[in-house]
Amino acid sequence: MDNFLLEAIVEAKKGYEEGGIPIGSVLVHNGKVIGKGHNRRVQQRSAILHGEMDALENAGRLPAKVYQECTLYTTLSPCPMCSGTILLYGIPKVVIGENKTFLGEEALLEERGVEVIVVDNEECKQLMATFIKEKPELWNEDIGI
Amino acid sequence: MDNFLLEAIVEAKKGYEEGGIPIGSVLVHNGKVIGKGHNRRVQQRSAILHGEMDALENAGRLPAKVYQECTLYTTLSPCPMCSGTILLYGIPKVVIGENKTFLGEEALLEERGVEVIVVDNEECKQLMATFIKEKPELWNEDIGI
Repeated sequence: MDNFLLEAIVEAKKGYEEGGIPIGSVLVHNGKVIGKGHNRRVQQRSAILHGEMDALENAGRLPAKVYQECTLYTTLSPCPMCSGTILLYGIPKVVIGENKTFLGEEALLEERGVEVIVVDNEECKQLMATFIKEKPELWNEDIGI
Repeated sequence: MDNFLLEAIVEAKKGYEEGGIPIGSVLVHNGKVIGKGHNRRVQQRSAILHGEMDALENAGRLPAKVYQECTLYTTLSPCPMCSGTILLYGIPKVVIGENKTFLGEEALLEERGVEVIVVDNEECKQLMATFIKEKPELWNEDIGI
């Protein structure tokens, strides 16, 4: 498995251990992680810090050119907010751990020219299955249902 | 003019006075502001706190039903990130101060059933014109170009 997806899974597990939603993400530029994060809805009582948003926020303010050379790794298919952020910054490639638990805006991303790779990773699916069984209301809150 | 748009403009002006990007937003539920904010790229060195995101974050974690009864006011047409967030939470109505300085994802929002109202407010346009003249690089960074 891709080491960067593994790093995103490590982030997801951190979130789970903190009592949060186990979705993690890393932003990679020129073969190097420049931002990583995980969903902070519970930990920071945040409505916007999905895993991908946290990774981008932790990467800090970057020149447009850097985003345009990045790959974003995420353990779960990106929701409309995170997909919109990928489009805002022109991130050209997204590697997704799985999209069985939740199918985000992959079609929109592809329509706008983003390369989308779905790994269908078992560990990503298992993490979400365990979490959703334990805290279904929290999961629904995170995806606005 | 709608008082809620006025409140969003107050937020935008706060941002300008802080040396930031003058875009403000308020989230309104049942005729009451439940969250307000402005762009914090400069103030918090944030890559994700656009005005709309800041308003939503300041509103805190809300049940899905509340978002679905809200109107989001913003001084400038919402970018892909902020539009995606509107879609994530199913906010049904967006009132936009102006879309001449920047045209965001209004078409996508409408395609997905969001009511979009553009006020074409002079003060919103003037705030952005002044700011972009003073700090063009900062504005480009904010919209990923």
